[in-house]
Amino acid sequence: MRILGIDPGLRVTGFGVIDKHGQKLSYVASGVIRTATGDLPSRLGTIFSSITTLIEQHRPDQASIEKVFVNVNPQSTLLLGQARGAAIAGLVAGGLPVAEYTALQLKQAIVGTGRATKSQVQDMIVRLLVLSGTPTTDAADALGVAICHAHSADTVAAIGKLAPGLAKKGYRVRGGRLIG
Amino acid sequence: MRILGIDPGLRVTGFGVIDKHGQKLSYVASGVIRTATGDLPSRLGTIFSSITTLIEQHRPDQASIEKVFVNVNPQSTLLLGQARGAAIAGLVAGGLPVAEYTALQLKQAIVGTGRATKSQVQDMIVRLLVLSGTPTTDAADALGVAICHAHSADTVAAIGKLAPGLAKKGYRVRGGRLIG
Repeated sequence: MRILGIDPGLRVTGFGVIDKHGQKLSYVASGVIRTATGDLPSRLGTIFSSITTLIEQHRPDQASIEKVFVNVNPQSTLLLGQARGAAIAGLVAGGLPVAEYTALQLKQAIVGTGRATKSQVQDMIVRLLVLSGTPTTDAADALGVAICHAHSADTVAAIGKLAPGLAKKGYRVRGGRLIG
Repeated sequence: MRILGIDPGLRVTGFGVIDKHGQKLSYVASGVIRTATGDLPSRLGTIFSSITTLIEQHRPDQASIEKVFVNVNPQSTLLLGQARGAAIAGLVAGGLPVAEYTALQLKQAIVGTGRATKSQVQDMIVRLLVLSGTPTTDAADALGVAICHAHSADTVAAIGKLAPGLAKKGYRVRGGRLIG
């Protein structure tokens, strides 16, 4: 199973692709989509089309995206929401089921504590995927949300065996329970 | 010139298509995209794919979308932002230049005052496009933002003759001045 993880943002959207063979995870690719210039529609268009290109290049089976914060600045919240909407549109248009995880779930899955720092997440990503270099924080978060989904997918598969109807497209897992 | 107007929302996205021949505007189509059920990614996917279908059906030359409010509830702002992001991704992926107008600009363009009510907008849309029935508020706002762009496009074309470099893709007009 190949998973595409996305850490959405208007200026920088991180992406990470991993493969899951049984319990083994391996690194495929990671990087960032930058949209620092241009008007809002063209920036959202860049996020959408870059995700379309990533899907064509790497042919993932599932997608996983970080849930975003409500920012103290409402205008920033609105901009971040639009970037995330364009990213999810790209994933769904590419035919991928999309799972969503909070930053807290990501940190717990990767470092073991919700109070982990960004650099602790980066360090654990390097260890878990046996990388020769450290990815940027955005790419690390994207790889992290992909790993988070790889772990949760086991839980969902296990629950799915007990109650097949629950393991549906776009499922989410919180605290080991299937929600949404 | 054919214009597709969009009034974005997570539950209901209004759309309206008009033709502009010289100074004459004529009605082509209007309606709403409803996404009341399902998880967030599938709802955003519905908004995106419905806009793709509208573009295929009506072949507009330009798109116009309402700017959205920052809601008092930050979570609602985030949801609305994501819906608008998915809609704009659909417009840009369909190859359309996208103009943005505030509700204030829309009301001023349609009714002549920024303090116009929703029903005043509806009534003016019926008159301006010589409709036999009243569109819903969402469809009326979408037709309104299309008309708003039809009027502004004249201004932009006039400015464009003086300074061709200004009349670029994704332009916006505020108070008769070209911005962004």
